[in-house]
Formats: sequence, C-alpha cells, structure tokens
Amino acid sequence: MTMAVNLSPLTTFYPVNGIKIGTVCAQIKQTQHDDLTLFVIAENSTCAAVFTRNAFCAAPVIIARQHLFASAPRALLINSGNANAGTGQQGLQNARTCCDTVAKLLNCASTQVLPFSTGVIGQSLPVDKICGVVATALATANTENWENAAQAIMTTDTIPKAVSIQKIIADELITITGIAKGSGMIKPDMATMLSFIATDVQISQSLLQICLERAVNVSFNRITVDSDTSTNDACVLVATGKSGLHIDSVDHPAFADFCQAVTQVCTQLAQAIIRDGEGATKFITITVEQGSSEQECIDVAYTIAHSPLVKTAFFASDANWGRILAAVGRAPVDNLVIEAIKINLDDVCIVEQGGVAASYTEEQGRRIMQQNEITIRVNLGRGTQHATVWTCDFSYDYVKINAEYRT
Amino acid sequence: MTMAVNLSPLTTFYPVNGIKIGTVCAQIKQTQHDDLTLFVIAENSTCAAVFTRNAFCAAPVIIARQHLFASAPRALLINSGNANAGTGQQGLQNARTCCDTVAKLLNCASTQVLPFSTGVIGQSLPVDKICGVVATALATANTENWENAAQAIMTTDTIPKAVSIQKIIADELITITGIAKGSGMIKPDMATMLSFIATDVQISQSLLQICLERAVNVSFNRITVDSDTSTNDACVLVATGKSGLHIDSVDHPAFADFCQAVTQVCTQLAQAIIRDGEGATKFITITVEQGSSEQECIDVAYTIAHSPLVKTAFFASDANWGRILAAVGRAPVDNLVIEAIKINLDDVCIVEQGGVAASYTEEQGRRIMQQNEITIRVNLGRGTQHATVWTCDFSYDYVKINAEYRT
Repeated sequence: MTMAVNLSPLTTFYPVNGIKIGTVCAQIKQTQHDDLTLFVIAENSTCAAVFTRNAFCAAPVIIARQHLFASAPRALLINSGNANAGTGQQGLQNARTCCDTVAKLLNCASTQVLPFSTGVIGQSLPVDKICGVVATALATANTENWENAAQAIMTTDTIPKAVSIQKIIADELITITGIAKGSGMIKPDMATMLSFIATDVQISQSLLQICLERAVNVSFNRITVDSDTSTNDACVLVATGKSGLHIDSVDHPAFADFCQAVTQVCTQLAQAIIRDGEGATKFITITVEQGSSEQECIDVAYTIAHSPLVKTAFFASDANWGRILAAVGRAPVDNLVIEAIKINLDDVCIVEQGGVAASYTEEQGRRIMQQNEITIRVNLGRGTQHATVWTCDFSYDYVKINAEYRT
Repeated sequence: MTMAVNLSPLTTFYPVNGIKIGTVCAQIKQTQHDDLTLFVIAENSTCAAVFTRNAFCAAPVIIARQHLFASAPRALLINSGNANAGTGQQGLQNARTCCDTVAKLLNCASTQVLPFSTGVIGQSLPVDKICGVVATALATANTENWENAAQAIMTTDTIPKAVSIQKIIADELITITGIAKGSGMIKPDMATMLSFIATDVQISQSLLQICLERAVNVSFNRITVDSDTSTNDACVLVATGKSGLHIDSVDHPAFADFCQAVTQVCTQLAQAIIRDGEGATKFITITVEQGSSEQECIDVAYTIAHSPLVKTAFFASDANWGRILAAVGRAPVDNLVIEAIKINLDDVCIVEQGGVAASYTEEQGRRIMQQNEITIRVNLGRGTQHATVWTCDFSYDYVKINAEYRT
C-alpha cells in the first residue's frame, strides 16, 4: 500500500477554549479503533457549515442542515464506518434518534446536535451501538482530544489530518484548530468529505459563514482525487468567542486577517486529503493562468486533474506532455487559441505554439517527474485570471482500494 | 493482460466495389507488423467525415479537413504508431508531404488524399519511412484487404475491429463494410479514434454527411473508456456508387433504411472499441430514460460512465449501488427529484425512493455482477426522453497499460 505524499501526523495541537471532544469505539467498523466522536461546544458559540451539493445527499447532511438553520449547535456527533446515505426515511429517523440521545445528556434541544456520518453507503446506521456509548464519549470529553478525533473520523485514510495554528490578530492571540478526513470519492462541491474546525474568535454566525465560504471556495472546492463527489461532504467551523478578539462586521480591520487564517487552515487540510488520496504517490498542483475568466481556468485545471491518462502517466513518472495537451484541448472552454498556450512542468516549458517546446528535452522531463511534488502550469495567454487545483496520480493501489472496499 | 469482452475477429468481409486497400510495414512501430494503410477510392465516389473537436487537434486532422473541403478524395493514407499531434508547423508540413507522394503515384491532386495518424503524441512523423513504402502499398492494393487494414491501424487494441453487412434496400443489394481502432483515450467528441467505412451506394456528399452525422451521434459519440478525447479522432464514410441503389434526396424512400444500416455498422464498431477498452473485463450499457431532455439523459449516463468508483466496483464484480447513486446525484442536471428515480441492474431494481429498493438482496446483486455484460438503467421519472452510453470497467490493467505506454 502506498503512503501519503509528504504528510506526517500533526504533533502540536492547540486546544480551542470552549471545545471539548470525546471519542469512543462504538464497533461500527470491524475494528477496536474509536469510530464515534462527540464535539461539545460551549454556549454562545457560533457555527458555520457548508455541505455537499450531491442531489443524493445523505440523511445526516439533511438533518444537520435543518438543525443548523433552527438553532446554534451545542454538539457535533460524528461516526465513521457507515455513511447513512441512500437509506431513505429510516436513515433520517436514525440520525434524529442519535441527536435526541445526545440532546438528553446535554440537556439541550435535539436541533442543537448536528449529526455527521462517513463510510459505506447504503447500510442501515447501527443506532443502538451509537446511542449505547454516547454517554461514555461525553464523560471522557476534554479539550486535549483533537488528535484522537482526527483518528476516529478516518475511513480509507492512511494518516490523520489536522492543522493547528495560533496567530496574533489585532493584538489578540487567537487559535484555529481543525481536522479533516477523506481519501477517495473526493471532488468536493461546496466542501469535502468531513472537516471540523474551531476557533476562539468571537464572531456572528453570518460573518463566520461568509468567512468559511470564502475559505472553502479556494481550498476544499479546489481538490480532486477521482472526480467523485461524496454524498456526505460537510465542513463545519465553530467560533467559541473565548479569545479577546471580537469581530462584529465585515469592515472590522481584523476580518480579512481572520479570513486569511481560516483559508490557510482549510488549504492545508484540503492538501492533506490529496496527499493521502487513495493510492497517491504524487502531489500535483495545477495552476492555470492568464485566462479570460476564473471559471475557464478552473475548467481547464479540472479537465487535466480528472484525466485518467494524465494521472497514470504521473504514476509512471512519465513526462507524457501529449496527454496534458490533449486534456487542455478537450476542456469545456470556447475558442482556445492553441498557439497562445504555454504549458510548464515546474520550471520547464514543455509546450508552446501548439507543439512541444523547442528547448524541451526528455532529460528535463525525467528530472521533474522523479519528484513526488510537481506543478503543472498552463498559461492560456488571453487574460488576467488564474486558478489552482490540487490532485494526485492514479495508481494500481487506487484500483485495489476501490475494488476491495466492501469485501 | 485482459482480453476483449465477447469480441472475436470478424471472419466474413464483403468487399466494397470501388475500394482497394494496400497495407505495408513502414517500421513506424518497433515491430514487423504492417503499420501503413492506403485506401484507393474509385473516381466519382463521395466521402463524408467527422473529426475530433479537441482544440489541440492533430496535424493530419487539420489537413484532412482542408482537403475534404477542397475536393472529393481519391485516397486515405493511415499510419499507426505515431499520432503526428502536438507537432506544430512541421507536423502540418509532414502530413502534406505524405499526401503529395500518394497524389503523384495516383496522378491526382494532393488535396484528394486525406491523411490519418494514430499512436504516440508529440513525436515527429517519420516521413521518409512512410513515403518510401507508399508505392508498395499501392502496388499490392486490392478489394479483399479489409482484414489486413483492420490489423494495420491498431495501437493498444488487442483485436481488430470490423463490421461488414449486406442488405437489400429498395430491391438493390448494397454492402457496407467498416473498420475501427481505439482502446484508450476514448471519449469521442464527434467521432472516435479512427474509423473507415465504405459502401457502394450512390449518394451525394451532402446526403452522405447527414447520414454519417446521424449515425455517429448515437454510436461513436456515445462511448467512453476513460473520458479522454483524442486529438486524432476521425470517422470517414465513403460511398462508391457502384451498386444499383441511387439515393438523391433526404425524401428518397431508401434514405432512412440506408441511415439505419450505417448506424448499425457504426454502433457495432463503437461497441467493439468498448469491448476492447484498455484493461476492460466488463461491457456496460447505461440507459437513462424518462428524462426531461435527451441532453440530461446523456449527462447522467456519462457521469456514471466516467466515475472511477463505479468502474472499479464493476471490475471487482461488487454491486456497490451506492456509488451509482452518488454519481447520479452529482450529475450536472438541475433539480433532480431523488424520490422519483429508479435504478436497475439488468432486471433487478436496486434503488427507488431515495434509497435501496425494498425488494433488493445482495444475492441478486452478486448474480448480476458475475456477468461480463451488464445494463445499468436509470429512470429519472420526469419525462419522455432517453439516451444510451456504452462503457467498460476500470482495472489494474488500465493503469498498467497507461503507465507503461511510452516505456
């Protein structure tokens, strides 16, 4: 089995004042690892979230959206091993039952609990197993438990994914800590598989939502492993207000800095998902620049990022630039002028004026392809817009992992 | 290496009066197999063609389009082993030089020769090798050579692909014989990799073009191996007029029958490409019905057909219907009502009312998945339109073939 590309487990987690986390083994998976995580959120916190746009979204996504609309969350309940997706009315009822159980223990409304599930699609959620251990999760909850939570939400991930930063903004020390899971079925459309981020900044729900959407748009929404958008994607950002920083409007001088810090955390988490993409051996950055619109840059980048031929060539460390060129040529973009297009692998120009660059040598290509982090830069030569997408290669292990996932 | 799914070499080829074919080894590939094919077309024939819409289309595609516009072709020159794509101005000049050489031998205009190339992208076309053996190809050309031509145009194909039919239309016996190549980089956009079809019907160029476009639209334009559109796709239909059937308008009573016969040949050739898709172990038909438009049916079908997760599940013979459901849910189609959608594997209903069908058992799924030909039927439950797309599964061998192709 391949290992994640240049990604190690995080060693320093800064707790977020106002967030306690409990993890427990509910035996949803056939292992003794923890698979149930409970976030307990202090009163007066705010919470923003984005969810998958897959029309077949999972029961917990439907319920979490409803609950978030109704009230400020006091808890997040996350299970791995079972997606509770494609489970119809019974799936919705099962998600609600779990929320009810947590609400009783916390003495809050059931709508103040948001449910999240990840794992196999289409199997009935084991409600009894989950409800039977929720009290234990709550009893053991503490502020230091982020590392265990990053472990407990994993499915085919080979490594836990977390980012934790402290920053001084407007003279106040603030903390942002987040975790994410996801390795396959990754082409988020609004958010990735599952990500939970918390900060101690004091900020209203509406401002927090603006901040999260901005950050997700250039991080989780810019990655792809296999073009498959999950039914369960969700990204949640909680602000506990326990630090000295209080942001009360988009015009507050600290708002831009805070958005940037959240974007930094989201981008690192999103990249961690790609580094741990199923079967990944290479981390590939695709930047399309000088486009006439940001959307056309995104479209060209994703066409390259989704091409099985480009991805298998990277797996083989083969500088098969013809496949990149063919992918650019079929991108859903009007009137590309191929003579104006330049394509670089890192610092080496491989394509210009409609063909292989005059200066290019196979030796240069080999040198670049031997690295495990590579940037493809496509210059469309007709505008000022740009966009970046991150992806990984396509290996035997991707097929192996996904051919064997249910068996 | 896997073998093509339920596909054997054709044994009965009906020659088409007015078409002679020569094949020869120009040593473009590193083998002793024939890799150059010359079609010699009788005077007064008509010719229709469709080409790739990839913006980075290959030099021979550009030249063939120009030549077809200028005059009625007398010859098709096809090489395998080298795509002459991504080769800039020199590539165009090389294609023209080959046409000039053929034209001198045939005593026709250079624009009456159409060039076609398939193989590795971005390497210079070996013009001297090709021009050095063209005379031999011409000298050996005969009407019986279709089988050799089907062999000579192959690249990663494991089996030659051909269809040959005779039909009585309007009391006249007519013949349609065609060959095709293609196995990877298959998601044609106007036509597939390369296909050459000839008939002895007498029909104008404009009518022939209408007929070909209709046929291609529901055959070659409805298949995908890996979502990658080639730079070199071309499909050519030649009508020699040597039979007794003369079609002089779209209102001619035989035109519909002729179109149907051409569509039959194109569909069988297109399906042959999928059966021989790189690494394919299963032939999958995806029919989307009761859509509100044909385009939305096509969009849903291709979203399933391109999903690596669906394709690897089929490779594993795993009835992982959750992946099909997730793919339908992310299709680029507005306002899907998931409760109205039904999904069948062959005769077994797997999804209805937003979840797994009440009647479904894993045993039923296993029975279907053990077959090597499977139909996915998606009923959108909101209209009268339908569309069918053919694809194959995604195996270790696909990765192997494409990781090793240049090495």
